[in-house]
Parts: sequence; C-alpha cells; structure tokens
Amino acid sequence: MTPMTATTLAAALSRRELSAEQVLRDCLERIDQREPELHAFAHLDPAPALARARQLDAGAVTGPLHGLPLGVKDLFDTADLPTAYGSAIWHGHQPRADAGVVAACRAAGALIPGKTVTTEFAAFTAGPTRNPHHAGHTPGGSSSGSAAAVAAGWLPLALGTQTAASIVRPAAYCGIVGFKPSVGLIGRAGVKLMSDTLDTVGGFARTVEDVALLAAVLTGDEGLRLGDGAGFGAIAAGDDASGARVGLFRGPHWDMVGDDVRALWEGVARRVGREVASPDWFAPLTALQIDVMQYEAARSLAWEHVNRSALLSDRMRALLDTGATIDGGAHRRNIEATRIARRRAGMLFEHHDMLLAPSAAGEAGLWEEGTGDPLFGRAWTLLGLPCLHLPLGVGANGLPIGLQVVGAMGDDARVLRAGDWLQGLLRDRVG
Amino acid sequence: MTPMTATTLAAALSRRELSAEQVLRDCLERIDQREPELHAFAHLDPAPALARARQLDAGAVTGPLHGLPLGVKDLFDTADLPTAYGSAIWHGHQPRADAGVVAACRAAGALIPGKTVTTEFAAFTAGPTRNPHHAGHTPGGSSSGSAAAVAAGWLPLALGTQTAASIVRPAAYCGIVGFKPSVGLIGRAGVKLMSDTLDTVGGFARTVEDVALLAAVLTGDEGLRLGDGAGFGAIAAGDDASGARVGLFRGPHWDMVGDDVRALWEGVARRVGREVASPDWFAPLTALQIDVMQYEAARSLAWEHVNRSALLSDRMRALLDTGATIDGGAHRRNIEATRIARRRAGMLFEHHDMLLAPSAAGEAGLWEEGTGDPLFGRAWTLLGLPCLHLPLGVGANGLPIGLQVVGAMGDDARVLRAGDWLQGLLRDRVG
Repeated sequence: MTPMTATTLAAALSRRELSAEQVLRDCLERIDQREPELHAFAHLDPAPALARARQLDAGAVTGPLHGLPLGVKDLFDTADLPTAYGSAIWHGHQPRADAGVVAACRAAGALIPGKTVTTEFAAFTAGPTRNPHHAGHTPGGSSSGSAAAVAAGWLPLALGTQTAASIVRPAAYCGIVGFKPSVGLIGRAGVKLMSDTLDTVGGFARTVEDVALLAAVLTGDEGLRLGDGAGFGAIAAGDDASGARVGLFRGPHWDMVGDDVRALWEGVARRVGREVASPDWFAPLTALQIDVMQYEAARSLAWEHVNRSALLSDRMRALLDTGATIDGGAHRRNIEATRIARRRAGMLFEHHDMLLAPSAAGEAGLWEEGTGDPLFGRAWTLLGLPCLHLPLGVGANGLPIGLQVVGAMGDDARVLRAGDWLQGLLRDRVG
Repeated sequence: MTPMTATTLAAALSRRELSAEQVLRDCLERIDQREPELHAFAHLDPAPALARARQLDAGAVTGPLHGLPLGVKDLFDTADLPTAYGSAIWHGHQPRADAGVVAACRAAGALIPGKTVTTEFAAFTAGPTRNPHHAGHTPGGSSSGSAAAVAAGWLPLALGTQTAASIVRPAAYCGIVGFKPSVGLIGRAGVKLMSDTLDTVGGFARTVEDVALLAAVLTGDEGLRLGDGAGFGAIAAGDDASGARVGLFRGPHWDMVGDDVRALWEGVARRVGREVASPDWFAPLTALQIDVMQYEAARSLAWEHVNRSALLSDRMRALLDTGATIDGGAHRRNIEATRIARRRAGMLFEHHDMLLAPSAAGEAGLWEEGTGDPLFGRAWTLLGLPCLHLPLGVGANGLPIGLQVVGAMGDDARVLRAGDWLQGLLRDRVG
C-alpha cells in the first residue's frame, strides 16, 4: 500500500479519523523494515515523538502539520535529539534549543522521530545513506537522509537545506518533489551555517501540494498552500502550455546532460514552452558560486578548520584549505558580482512566468562514487531563485529523473502552483 | 596615562617591545579597577587568555592582532567561555565551538579575556552595564559591554553586532568609533541570530585606524586597513570639503535631534558638504525595519518563545508576541520592499561619496530609562549600508556626541578612509 500523502494524512488527522500515535507507529514500522539497508537516519529515537503524539491525540488540533511525522536533516538543531552536522567533530552534541524552523514545525503539530543523514557539514563527503530505488546507488546530497526517507515512503515530509544543489539533486535522484524557496525568506537560526550568502532552508515531499503545505509552515505564508482555496490563476486555467509562459532553459551545462534527461526534455518540449537561450552573464555564475561557497565555508567553519582539522574528511579539509586562500577583497568583489547577477536575473522572467531546467545530468550514480555533481543547482542557488524539482520519469537504469521549475525572486507561490500543474500535465505524457 | 591604540600596541607587540602577557595584565588591572562600577562583562575569565598570551610570547608572531586583547559580545559563541546571549534561558551555556569571526580573530592573535554584556538577545532589555563617562547613564545597546569596555580604555578592540542601531548607538553614547560593515560581507556562523536580513557583525575601537584593523581581520580584506600603504585617494587629498563629496543627510527624524547634536551639525556644515534632502522612499524604511526585525526575531527565537516564555523579560516577550502576529505573506512583501529599497539606495550616492547623518538624538540618557532609541540606525541597517560612528564632541551633560558616516553598499574601505580624514578635520574645529 502506498503511504498517504501529507495533505491526506493531515486532513484525516485533523478530523480525528486517524490518531497521531497510529500514524507515527506506521511510519516507524516502515522505517524498521528498511533502515538497516538504507541508513537514512543519523539518529533515530521515537520516544519523544511518541510521547508528543499521545499529547496531540489527547488535546486540541494544533496546526497544519498536526500529527505529521517530519524528517529533520541533521544540520538543524533539535532540543530533544543530538545534532552532529554530519561531522565527527560534533559527535554527541546535544543542542539546548530547536532551530527556529524546527520549533515552527513542532508548533504546527509535526512529530520528529529522528535526524536524517547529512553529508559532512552539508558539503560533499557522503554519509551511509542509500537510494531507496536501488541501494547500490547514491540518494544524492547533502540532504541525503531526508530525501531517502521521503522516497522510501517512511515520512510524508522532511526538511533540507541547499547551498549548491542539496535539495534539488537528492530530490531528482530519489524521485520526489524538492523545494528550495527564494533565498532570505526562511530564517536560519539554529541551522549550522556554511554559507551566509547561499544556505537556504527547504523541504521534500512526494507531491507538490505536500511540499507547499510544508513551505507554508516554514514561511508562515498561507498563500503558498495549494488546494481549493488557493487558486491557480492564469497558469492553471489552461490545460496545456498555452496557459503559461514556460521557458525551456537548457543552460550552459547542457553538454553534460545524459540521454535519459535529453529524451525527457524533448518530450516536455513537445508539450510546453519555448526554448530560452542562456544569456552571456549566466555561464560564469557556476564558478562564482564555487568561490563564494568555498570562501564562506572556510570562514564559517574556521574553528573546526583550525582546531579539529584531524577530524575532518580529506575532501572537507581540502575545501576549507582552498576557501582559506581566497582573499577577502576578492570575496567582496564576488559578493558584488552576486548582487549584480541577482538583479539581472529578473530579465530571465520578462517573457516567461517560469523556467524549466535540468536538475541533474541523469540518474543517480553508484553509491561508491559519491553524492553526484551539484552542477545544475549552483547558478540558481547563487541567484537565490525558488527551485522546485518535479519527478517526471525513469532512466535507463530504472532510477528516477525529472526537471526543475525555477521562478523569479519571491515568486515562490507561482512556482508551486505551476509545478503542480506541470506535473499533472507532464507526468504521463512525456518520453 | 591613556592606553595605547590597537595599532600602536600591535606594532609594539609584533616588534616584541611589549609582551602579550604584559599587555593583557595591564588591561586586566584597568578592568579590575572599574568593573565593579561599570559591569561591562557578562563573564570574565582571564585564565585561558593569559595561557594563550604566554604561548604567543613564546612563539612566532601570529597575525595582525597578535597579542591584542579583544572584547567579545556575549552573542558570539566561544569555545572556552560560556555564552548566554543576555538571556536567563541560556544561563551557563558552554558552546563547543567559537563563532567563525571569533576563530578568525584568535587565528590573527587576539586574546579574549571575557564576554561583554549584551542586551537580552541583542534587543531592548538592558543588562547591568553603565556608561564609563558617567555611571548614572546608559552605554547604549545592544552591544553595551563592548562599547563600555573600549570607552573605559580597558580593551583596544571589541566585537559587536547591529540589527537596528546596536553598534552605532553605543559608540555614540560612549564616545568611541563603531563600525557596522556592509551587510552580507561577514559570516554569522556561531552568532545567535535574531534577524537573518538585518544582523551584521562589526566592532568598536578608539580610532578609525584601529577599527579598520579589526574590520580587515573580520573580512579577510587587507584593503580595509588604513596607514601608509592604504592610500586615501581623492578624498584624503584635500584638507577640507573640496576634496570629498560629503552629503549632509539630516533624514526624516531630524525633529527628534536635540540641541547638542544640532549645534554639532551646524559646526560640521560650515566645514564640509552640502545638505541632501531625504527622498520620499526613505522615511517609511524605519517602520519597515521594525516589521522585518519583529517577524524574524519571532521566527529565530521560536523555541525560546514557545518553550521558555517565563524566562523572557516582559519587553522581549512582547516583541516576540508582536512578531508572531505578522503574517508570512506580509513579511514576503516586506522583504521585497527591502530589496527594492536596497537598489534605490544607490541613488543616494550618485552625487556624494558618502553621507553624514545623526547617530543618535543626543547624549546618553539615564541608565534607568533603558539603552536609548535606535531610531537613527534602523533605516541604514535595513539598507545594509556601511556605517561608521565618529565621536566629535560633548553635549551639555559632558557626555559624548558625534555623527555617522554612511557609504554605498560594499564601499566599506572608502567609509573608513573618509571617516579617518573627517575625524581629523572636524574633531577640533566644530562647535
């Protein structure tokens, strides 16, 4: 039996047709069955969540996530569960407080049975997590455990963060919906910062409607929710491309895209949109993102780099070593270039409501080869634009593929509504 | 004897004319004399700093802050000193790691003898700190202890943060130099976040040259340092206003400015610059800053607000209560308005290299009346522009007054150079 969506579960829970304890126990049972294979949890301790579930069942309906199990990436502080940021340096660390967004989700009724695996400090060194569609493959990173736990049907919702492509890539590899909101809308208090300029909180679900429910709680903006009351506007009015101005943005790294995603792209292009050329200023943004991220990571993790270097992975240490060589004056110019690029990005949406772009080159690679390349996320994260990954098919190995919807800065509601419409339109017709 | 400046001390320390231990012991002696009166420290524990001083004296010269005592606002995590963010909720909290900027200062050779008092979560509820110029008056907030410790001559440098006016106001009340850099240049990892959009790391010193030395370490940008190698460019070439395009920006709250600052302003206006009218879009920024700060504070401190409300001050709880009533959709529009205002702010500098503006309405008020009004900082912090407070005189009560230099986004180096030049030009000629 396919587990219910978050939206369906939330409705049943708020009507008391299901108890929070029962829903959580069902989740825990599914987790128990496959966690030895998938290793999605850095720490699993159902006791506090079960106690809270019983409280919820005995009291009033709390909020829009009432009784919903939620996976929390181990980059977010939690007051009742240890938090190690994927690093041996932070092994056994027990924060005193919840991160702001964790507290918001709990206040809305979410139950948190454990912390999901992150790569080391949300960078590139993989944790133990496997892809639920094939345990020999990576789930992607850095939000590896959150994506795997949702894709496995264990949890309806999970939190992630993105600095390069850490939501969109694992969503693509795991065949679920991943949403990275506009930068700056969701506070990061209590989230281990790697890059002040880039780090963005978002989440995972199995449907766009579900991830919109989560996004509404994370932002406090009810306007992000879909459903009857939300209204789709001009975009949803049509049942084909004529209703929405969709730009098909292959981007500067199209030559890296494999046959599976190319075939998907051609199928989509027959249904919606018009090809959009990548402007000259776009291609250099990938390298700019790398420099900004490396410099800021070395600054953010200076204590770890200076004092606990032996407990860093070689790859993490190399990243911080490189970041520490970037001069502050160069970084100031990089931040100025980022600011200019963010202004220019508005031009991409003068003739289009949203863009469709590759999320990843293709299916998930082998687990042994790491969490994959964030190439197709870097520029969008640097620009701070809302990105929504839509699972749209499978590749040659039977693993998921899809595309991302990218919107203008602050246009998160339209991205979610357009994504919902596009997924319905495209899922069964492309290829 | 007036204590040496940071720049002079650093030179003597790097030439080994002074030992780090001796410099630190001198500081500690001055602290011991007046701390019972001024209460600038939330936690004072010289042992780790003394041990480090002996290490420095026995080893090679480490960096530009080699052996310099540094005050650290108790909003920054420190691995060897407890960190309570000015809140009873965090009493006795011992972070595992240093904040990124603290680690950077230590790597540059700084010695940290204690944590300086912050208002509760860097908002409005005052700590015990008194103004060094008159203990019956407030030092300002939120960086109360850092400003007082520098003004008292205890420490040559100290770290602060600004969300509304928390660097500029205490610098004004204490008669020292305070520098809030451009937003987004200095990472905030390990700093207790109140507002992602506004919180900015900066510092205090007794001279512009000193605060520029600190800013160079905080950003890793050697181009911020003054001194022989730095060059003053066109601005410093003149010895009066003809060399620099200084705009005199009274701003929309001029009617709140008291007689002392008005007299100072008239004296300055005779020497430099031209009056600049406040554009229509500027006045609403103060209210916008309040809304952004309140919403984000409620989100950042959601765990404290929900779970430890009884340990909040009434004023802090009221701020969070108000912030929690602001809808996420309204906040999204506020962030969009902030983005638009930050773009418009460039227009303020089309005809001026920098602006001079009031830092505060006048002298520090009585201690019992709180830390004063951040009115004159709110809009500049919302715009994210670099602000440098210059002490330029005294008011009717014998307490310090001054003005702030405000620069274009990213123009921090020019603000520091212009500030140094202006201070020399104005200090002895106005009034």
